[in-house]
Amino acid sequence: MNKLPLAPMGRILADAGAQRSTKNAKIELSECLAEIGHEIAEESVKIAEHSGRKTVKAEDIELALKMKF
Amino acid sequence: MNKLPLAPMGRILADAGAQRSTKNAKIELSECLAEIGHEIAEESVKIAEHSGRKTVKAEDIELALKMKF
Repeated sequence: MNKLPLAPMGRILADAGAQRSTKNAKIELSECLAEIGHEIAEESVKIAEHSGRKTVKAEDIELALKMKF
Repeated sequence: MNKLPLAPMGRILADAGAQRSTKNAKIELSECLAEIGHEIAEESVKIAEHSGRKTVKAEDIELALKMKF
């Protein structure tokens, strides 16, 4: 699976009010977001193909997000 | 809002089958995931506090994810 860097995970947790977070918490958040990102990306590819395009555009991501969440 | 780097977004899209993706698509995916990450992080902070801890652990993230999605 794709990995997301841990430093932004620490910043997201701190901004959300976490006084401290373990390294495993950052890894867990990174893995969750990579998985969710993969699901959104898969839907956006289907949407782009359905529209006769090989290029995924921002609006495909937006629609995929609305449909999934 | 926190930003996530664009290179992993391109990899997530490519792994999901995107032949090409625009820079704006990567930015959009990055912003979506940062927002979802913030929501999960906020719940995980509440869960940690409820458990009498100031430190967010991986299991707080897991429970927050189950509760939100």
